[in-house]
Amino acid sequence: MNEKKLKTIVEHLYQKDFDGMIIKDMNNMGYISNYFPTAFAICLLKEDPIIYTRSMDLELAEATSDIEVKTFKSLKDLKEILKKENHEKIAIEKTLDIETYQKISGEYELTISDLLEKERMIKTSDEIAKIKKATEIAHKSFIELIDDVETKKFSELTMAYKLGQSLRDNGAESESFDTIFTSGSSTSLPHSIPGNNKIDYPILVDWGAKYHRYCSDTTRTIIYNKKEEEIFDIVLEAYTKTIKAIKPGIKSNELDKIARDIITEHGYGENFIHSTGHSLGLDIHENPIIAFNNETTIEKDMIITIEPGIYLKERFGVRIEDTIHVTNKGEVIGNLNPVL
Amino acid sequence: MNEKKLKTIVEHLYQKDFDGMIIKDMNNMGYISNYFPTAFAICLLKEDPIIYTRSMDLELAEATSDIEVKTFKSLKDLKEILKKENHEKIAIEKTLDIETYQKISGEYELTISDLLEKERMIKTSDEIAKIKKATEIAHKSFIELIDDVETKKFSELTMAYKLGQSLRDNGAESESFDTIFTSGSSTSLPHSIPGNNKIDYPILVDWGAKYHRYCSDTTRTIIYNKKEEEIFDIVLEAYTKTIKAIKPGIKSNELDKIARDIITEHGYGENFIHSTGHSLGLDIHENPIIAFNNETTIEKDMIITIEPGIYLKERFGVRIEDTIHVTNKGEVIGNLNPVL
Repeated sequence: MNEKKLKTIVEHLYQKDFDGMIIKDMNNMGYISNYFPTAFAICLLKEDPIIYTRSMDLELAEATSDIEVKTFKSLKDLKEILKKENHEKIAIEKTLDIETYQKISGEYELTISDLLEKERMIKTSDEIAKIKKATEIAHKSFIELIDDVETKKFSELTMAYKLGQSLRDNGAESESFDTIFTSGSSTSLPHSIPGNNKIDYPILVDWGAKYHRYCSDTTRTIIYNKKEEEIFDIVLEAYTKTIKAIKPGIKSNELDKIARDIITEHGYGENFIHSTGHSLGLDIHENPIIAFNNETTIEKDMIITIEPGIYLKERFGVRIEDTIHVTNKGEVIGNLNPVL
Repeated sequence: MNEKKLKTIVEHLYQKDFDGMIIKDMNNMGYISNYFPTAFAICLLKEDPIIYTRSMDLELAEATSDIEVKTFKSLKDLKEILKKENHEKIAIEKTLDIETYQKISGEYELTISDLLEKERMIKTSDEIAKIKKATEIAHKSFIELIDDVETKKFSELTMAYKLGQSLRDNGAESESFDTIFTSGSSTSLPHSIPGNNKIDYPILVDWGAKYHRYCSDTTRTIIYNKKEEEIFDIVLEAYTKTIKAIKPGIKSNELDKIARDIITEHGYGENFIHSTGHSLGLDIHENPIIAFNNETTIEKDMIITIEPGIYLKERFGVRIEDTIHVTNKGEVIGNLNPVL
């Protein structure tokens, strides 16, 4: 992160009457410092920020961090700084574990703040470029595999792994999450784990690439019979109309409602058992979540997924997902046809 | 988990004066119920335990859980139960996030308990068999690759991925953690990430397989010059003597001290920048950690790793690691020679 952006974040922190923020989440740490810890590390973000890391991670931290790095043996080091500098109100992440929370508690207030989540909602042009590249790699890799998919010669597990190889061959460092390569009745589980069984129909693939640590996220369902087609068309309508409605100013829950209403009108409201989408970036799930209870206003340069789905228990499921860059409208990233 | 074991765990909970325990960690949940959540889920463990899960995970939960499952929209459901049943003292996991902690807080005491970590320390014969099988798969897969390793034709990233393919071909469901396949000066970083560079010497591989959700963990370093050999021999001595000392009754910090003293005597104490080992099971890092500040007594049917290492900054690193089953002594799992 450049110095100017970091300064702005610290200013925002001070504007909210915090004296500093304690950061432990790996991607928050990487976001502000460019050092992505591989062991327990903690950062005190303030005008002169400092990262405490373990000896085993020091060489990596020193080689990558834009922020001063020290080693520590115990969280008492951090508590002493907080005390010595007379801090009164410190921001913490909502993901902080209760054990660390109790260890760093002292004569000051520790308050959950969504400051970094909010900063990370609006992507820079550099971040957008990385997400686009990740998506491009993911789509290219999928297309290269499509003949293998359709022969149904291989197991789900083998196909998931072949896709992973293809992602790496095309320049990704890894998957952005464990590939969901599922088929037959297992498609009714939104987070199905690929099995050793040969591929059956329908086929549902939910996959992503990580490029320079940024994620992509796409889902395609390949269908073959009339009933599947009927369901597919409803999901496609929800997908298309929701994406069309994306523009700065609309709220997350309004987008969720568009998708949910369409599916409900067709009688499958009870079978749309997850949120309509989510933002992504360094993490595969970022804010805002596109859900009935999320009132975040969509803004320019957010990146969000739209992924309506219908799941018929023990029969099959259909989901279509793409990643959208919010400009003055919603621009789908990549040009992989949702109908395969 | 069988009913009898679950009953025993609940008894232990009551013996510690808890009215129940709130479980959110995926592997803790799987350990007690056989349901491994793929979305936010929470369990109230007590005489009549209950799991709250999201709609999207309900089909999976119902198909796998030994414990009653309900869906929930908000954590208020859980709070109401706690209130209605007049609970006073509830155990929580140390990994619980502060956001959930605050949401479930009420007119009762929430106290961190290591009950489940302790229950998980001693492995059943079924768990031991799975860890042994995972290790066998990991070693077999590595040996199949050894010629490729030594030709140095491929990149670290390619080799890491080839190893992953081999693990799956041999029956693993996945890696037990991201494979560390590193070489040349990058070996000085204990958690180095494989790069696109061709393999150089020395080569350090730290890898594991997951079999029926149970992990294996092994590290080998392949050396080629005199200096590397000098360091290797010190690490090997620390590895051998520490394993020899394993027996029920010895403490974790005593084992750490044996390894650390040997390396320190040779003048490299400052270069042994991590703990000597850790337990493993469903998680790759479980309790006890074999570290200077851990006084846990080693017991029969614990499974622990011993992994001393020496890291020379910007030059190279050497680590040797095996997984040990504690019987009346320390029995190394698998028979992959530490000297390759």
